[in-house]
Amino acid sequence: MSDSVVVGWIDTAEGQAAVEAAVEEVRRRKGRLVIVHSSRGGDEDAATVVRTRDALAELEARLGAEGLEVTVRDYVRGNDPAEDLMDVAEKDGAALIVIGLRRRSPVGKLLMGSNAQEILLRAECPVLAVKAK
Amino acid sequence: MSDSVVVGWIDTAEGQAAVEAAVEEVRRRKGRLVIVHSSRGGDEDAATVVRTRDALAELEARLGAEGLEVTVRDYVRGNDPAEDLMDVAEKDGAALIVIGLRRRSPVGKLLMGSNAQEILLRAECPVLAVKAK
Repeated sequence: MSDSVVVGWIDTAEGQAAVEAAVEEVRRRKGRLVIVHSSRGGDEDAATVVRTRDALAELEARLGAEGLEVTVRDYVRGNDPAEDLMDVAEKDGAALIVIGLRRRSPVGKLLMGSNAQEILLRAECPVLAVKAK
Repeated sequence: MSDSVVVGWIDTAEGQAAVEAAVEEVRRRKGRLVIVHSSRGGDEDAATVVRTRDALAELEARLGAEGLEVTVRDYVRGNDPAEDLMDVAEKDGAALIVIGLRRRSPVGKLLMGSNAQEILLRAECPVLAVKAK
Protein backbone atom coordinates (compact mmCIF):
# COMPACT_ATOMS: atom_id res chain seq x y z
CA MET A 1 0.00 0.00 0.00
CA SER A 2 1.24 3.51 -0.72
CA ASP A 3 2.61 5.76 2.00
CA SER A 4 -0.02 7.73 3.84
CA VAL A 5 0.79 11.31 4.79
CA VAL A 6 -1.58 12.71 7.42
CA VAL A 7 -1.80 16.48 7.77
CA GLY A 8 -3.56 18.55 10.40
CA TRP A 9 -5.37 21.38 8.69
CA ILE A 10 -6.71 24.61 10.14
CA ASP A 11 -7.81 27.67 8.22
CA THR A 12 -4.68 29.75 8.84
CA ALA A 13 -1.39 30.47 7.06
CA GLU A 14 0.26 27.70 9.13
CA GLY A 15 -2.46 25.21 8.21
CA GLN A 16 -2.00 26.12 4.55
CA ALA A 17 1.79 25.73 4.82
CA ALA A 18 1.31 22.30 6.40
CA VAL A 19 -0.92 21.17 3.53
CA GLU A 20 1.55 22.43 0.93
CA ALA A 21 4.44 20.58 2.58
CA ALA A 22 2.30 17.45 2.89
CA VAL A 23 1.41 17.59 -0.81
CA GLU A 24 5.13 17.78 -1.68
CA GLU A 25 5.79 14.76 0.53
CA VAL A 26 2.94 12.82 -1.08
CA ARG A 27 4.38 13.54 -4.53
CA ARG A 28 7.89 12.57 -3.45
CA ARG A 29 6.68 9.33 -1.91
CA LYS A 30 4.01 8.66 -4.55
CA GLY A 31 1.69 8.27 -1.58
CA ARG A 32 -1.73 9.52 -0.58
CA LEU A 33 -2.90 12.42 1.51
CA VAL A 34 -5.22 12.40 4.50
CA ILE A 35 -6.35 15.85 5.65
CA VAL A 36 -7.64 15.99 9.21
CA HIS A 37 -9.63 18.94 10.48
CA SER A 38 -10.77 18.80 14.02
CA SER A 39 -12.69 21.30 16.09
CA ARG A 40 -13.99 20.80 19.58
CA GLY A 41 -17.30 22.29 18.55
CA GLY A 42 -19.62 24.46 20.56
CA ASP A 43 -17.40 27.52 20.63
CA GLU A 44 -17.56 28.61 16.99
CA ASP A 45 -20.17 30.78 15.36
CA ALA A 46 -22.11 29.40 12.41
CA ALA A 47 -20.39 31.71 9.89
CA THR A 48 -16.95 30.40 10.88
CA VAL A 49 -18.11 26.80 10.66
CA VAL A 50 -19.53 27.36 7.17
CA ARG A 51 -16.45 29.26 5.97
CA THR A 52 -14.13 26.56 7.30
CA ARG A 53 -16.17 23.80 5.73
CA ASP A 54 -16.16 25.63 2.38
CA ALA A 55 -12.39 26.15 2.53
CA LEU A 56 -11.87 22.46 3.26
CA ALA A 57 -14.16 21.36 0.41
CA GLU A 58 -12.37 23.73 -1.97
CA LEU A 59 -8.98 22.36 -0.86
CA GLU A 60 -10.11 18.77 -1.39
CA ALA A 61 -11.50 19.59 -4.85
CA ARG A 62 -8.35 21.45 -5.91
CA LEU A 63 -5.96 18.71 -4.80
CA GLY A 64 -8.16 16.00 -6.30
CA ALA A 65 -8.17 17.92 -9.61
CA GLU A 66 -4.36 17.93 -9.45
CA GLY A 67 -4.49 14.14 -9.47
CA LEU A 68 -3.69 13.60 -5.80
CA GLU A 69 -5.34 10.80 -3.84
CA VAL A 70 -6.99 12.77 -1.02
CA THR A 71 -9.21 11.84 1.90
CA VAL A 72 -10.69 14.46 4.24
CA ARG A 73 -11.66 13.71 7.83
CA ASP A 74 -13.59 16.50 9.49
CA TYR A 75 -14.26 15.91 13.18
CA VAL A 76 -16.40 17.79 15.66
CA ARG A 77 -16.52 15.40 18.56
CA GLY A 78 -15.03 17.27 21.46
CA ASN A 79 -11.54 15.81 21.20
CA ASP A 80 -8.32 17.73 21.28
CA PRO A 81 -7.10 18.17 17.70
CA ALA A 82 -3.96 16.25 18.70
CA GLU A 83 -6.02 13.20 19.68
CA ASP A 84 -8.00 13.19 16.45
CA LEU A 85 -4.87 13.59 14.34
CA MET A 86 -2.95 10.81 16.06
CA ASP A 87 -6.00 8.58 16.02
CA VAL A 88 -6.28 8.89 12.24
CA ALA A 89 -2.52 8.47 11.79
CA GLU A 90 -2.42 5.28 13.85
CA LYS A 91 -5.46 3.67 12.24
CA ASP A 92 -4.15 4.57 8.81
CA GLY A 93 -0.59 3.37 9.51
CA ALA A 94 0.67 6.81 8.51
CA ALA A 95 4.25 7.13 7.28
CA LEU A 96 4.32 10.80 8.24
CA ILE A 97 2.33 13.44 10.09
CA VAL A 98 2.63 17.07 8.99
CA ILE A 99 1.72 19.97 11.26
CA GLY A 100 2.01 23.76 11.02
CA LEU A 101 3.74 25.78 13.71
CA ARG A 102 3.57 29.47 14.30
CA ARG A 103 6.84 31.24 13.61
CA ARG A 104 8.51 32.93 16.60
CA SER A 105 10.66 35.99 16.26
CA PRO A 106 14.26 35.62 17.48
CA VAL A 107 13.34 37.59 20.58
CA GLY A 108 9.83 36.13 20.87
CA LYS A 109 8.76 34.03 23.79
CA LEU A 110 9.62 30.41 23.22
CA LEU A 111 6.44 28.48 23.72
CA MET A 112 4.97 25.66 21.75
CA GLY A 113 1.25 24.93 21.71
CA SER A 114 0.21 21.89 23.70
CA ASN A 115 -1.32 20.18 20.67
CA ALA A 116 1.88 20.50 18.66
CA GLN A 117 3.97 19.33 21.57
CA GLU A 118 1.73 16.34 22.19
CA ILE A 119 1.85 15.27 18.55
CA LEU A 120 5.63 15.71 18.35
CA LEU A 121 6.28 13.69 21.50
CA ARG A 122 3.64 11.00 21.21
CA ALA A 123 3.11 10.25 17.54
CA GLU A 124 4.25 6.79 16.47
CA CYS A 125 5.54 8.02 13.12
CA PRO A 126 7.88 10.91 12.19
CA VAL A 127 6.37 14.40 12.36
CA LEU A 128 7.22 17.17 9.91
CA ALA A 129 6.74 20.65 11.40
CA VAL A 130 6.49 23.58 8.99
CA LYS A 131 5.92 27.30 9.33
CA ALA A 132 4.14 29.76 7.10
CA LYS A 133 6.44 31.63 4.67
CA MET B 1 22.07 22.75 -6.34
CA SER B 2 20.72 19.61 -4.74
CA ASP B 3 18.58 19.72 -1.59
CA SER B 4 20.57 19.81 1.60
CA VAL B 5 19.25 17.80 4.55
CA VAL B 6 20.85 18.80 7.86
CA VAL B 7 20.66 16.33 10.72
CA GLY B 8 21.61 16.80 14.36
CA TRP B 9 23.48 13.73 15.49
CA ILE B 10 24.18 12.50 19.00
CA ASP B 11 25.42 9.08 20.01
CA THR B 12 22.05 7.70 21.18
CA ALA B 13 19.18 5.68 19.72
CA GLU B 14 17.38 8.95 18.91
CA GLY B 15 20.45 10.35 17.14
CA GLN B 16 20.70 7.16 15.12
CA ALA B 17 16.99 7.30 14.22
CA ALA B 18 17.43 10.91 13.08
CA VAL B 19 20.31 9.96 10.79
CA GLU B 20 18.38 7.05 9.30
CA ALA B 21 15.38 9.25 8.57
CA ALA B 22 17.67 11.93 7.10
CA VAL B 23 19.32 9.37 4.81
CA GLU B 24 15.88 8.31 3.53
CA GLU B 25 15.03 11.95 2.86
CA VAL B 26 18.31 12.50 1.02
CA ARG B 27 17.60 9.49 -1.20
CA ARG B 28 14.03 10.61 -1.86
CA ARG B 29 15.18 14.13 -2.75
CA LYS B 30 18.39 13.06 -4.47
CA GLY B 31 20.03 15.54 -2.16
CA ARG B 32 23.03 15.63 0.12
CA LEU B 33 23.44 15.07 3.83
CA VAL B 34 25.05 17.34 6.41
CA ILE B 35 25.60 15.73 9.82
CA VAL B 36 26.06 18.18 12.68
CA HIS B 37 27.46 17.10 16.00
CA SER B 38 27.81 19.73 18.63
CA SER B 39 29.01 19.48 22.19
CA ARG B 40 29.54 22.36 24.55
CA GLY B 41 32.88 20.89 25.56
CA GLY B 42 34.48 20.88 28.96
CA ASP B 43 32.03 18.53 30.64
CA GLU B 44 32.88 15.27 28.88
CA ASP B 45 35.58 12.79 29.80
CA ALA B 46 38.24 11.92 27.22
CA ALA B 47 36.92 8.38 26.69
CA THR B 48 33.47 9.69 25.74
CA VAL B 49 34.95 12.26 23.37
CA VAL B 50 37.05 9.59 21.63
CA ARG B 51 34.15 7.12 21.43
CA THR B 52 31.83 9.77 20.01
CA ARG B 53 34.41 10.89 17.47
CA ASP B 54 34.97 7.27 16.38
CA ALA B 55 31.24 6.66 16.02
CA LEU B 56 30.91 9.79 13.90
CA ALA B 57 33.84 8.84 11.66
CA GLU B 58 32.40 5.35 11.21
CA LEU B 59 29.01 6.79 10.33
CA GLU B 60 30.53 9.13 7.74
CA ALA B 61 32.56 6.29 6.20
CA ARG B 62 29.57 3.94 6.04
CA LEU B 63 27.24 6.48 4.42
CA GLY B 64 29.96 7.58 2.00
CA ALA B 65 30.51 3.94 1.02
CA GLU B 66 26.77 3.69 0.31
CA GLY B 67 27.23 6.44 -2.27
CA LEU B 68 25.70 9.26 -0.27
CA GLU B 69 27.11 12.79 -0.47
CA VAL B 70 27.95 13.44 3.20
CA THR B 71 29.54 16.32 5.10
CA VAL B 72 30.24 16.16 8.82
CA ARG B 73 30.46 19.25 11.02
CA ASP B 74 31.73 18.53 14.51
CA TYR B 75 31.65 21.53 16.83
CA VAL B 76 33.00 22.07 20.30
CA ARG B 77 32.69 25.79 20.69
CA GLY B 78 30.46 26.28 23.68
CA ASN B 79 27.25 26.88 21.73
CA ASP B 80 23.93 25.27 22.41
CA PRO B 81 23.49 22.39 19.96
CA ALA B 82 20.37 24.16 18.63
CA GLU B 83 22.45 27.23 17.69
CA ASP B 84 25.08 25.19 15.87
CA LEU B 85 22.47 23.19 13.99
CA MET B 86 20.47 26.22 12.87
CA ASP B 87 23.64 28.07 11.98
CA VAL B 88 24.71 25.27 9.62
CA ALA B 89 21.19 24.95 8.20
CA GLU B 90 20.93 28.65 7.44
CA LYS B 91 24.38 28.99 5.87
CA ASP B 92 23.78 25.87 3.81
CA GLY B 93 20.28 26.90 2.70
CA ALA B 94 18.96 23.62 4.09
CA ALA B 95 15.73 22.23 2.65
CA LEU B 96 15.11 20.24 5.82
CA ILE B 97 16.41 19.76 9.35
CA VAL B 98 16.04 16.35 11.00
CA ILE B 99 16.16 15.88 14.77
CA GLY B 100 15.62 12.97 17.13
CA LEU B 101 13.15 13.18 20.00
CA ARG B 102 12.84 10.91 22.97
CA ARG B 103 9.66 8.90 23.00
CA ARG B 104 7.25 9.60 25.88
CA SER B 105 4.97 6.97 27.27
CA PRO B 106 1.23 7.74 27.09
CA VAL B 107 1.27 8.55 30.79
CA GLY B 108 4.74 10.09 30.76
CA LYS B 109 5.31 13.70 31.58
CA LEU B 110 4.93 15.87 28.54
CA LEU B 111 8.10 17.87 28.25
CA MET B 112 10.21 18.68 25.26
CA GLY B 113 13.89 19.49 25.54
CA SER B 114 14.74 23.15 25.07
CA ASN B 115 17.05 22.44 22.12
CA ALA B 116 14.34 20.56 20.24
CA GLN B 117 11.78 23.22 21.02
CA GLU B 118 14.08 26.00 19.88
CA ILE B 119 14.86 24.27 16.59
CA LEU B 120 11.20 23.48 15.92
CA LEU B 121 10.05 27.03 16.60
CA ARG B 122 12.93 29.02 15.14
CA ALA B 123 14.32 27.10 12.18
CA GLU B 124 13.75 28.77 8.82
CA CYS B 125 13.10 25.47 7.04
CA PRO B 126 10.79 22.53 7.86
CA VAL B 127 11.90 20.27 10.70
CA LEU B 128 11.37 16.51 10.72
CA ALA B 129 11.20 15.05 14.23
CA VAL B 130 11.71 11.31 14.61
CA LYS B 131 11.86 8.90 17.53
CA ALA B 132 13.84 5.75 18.04
CA LYS B 133 11.99 2.54 17.15
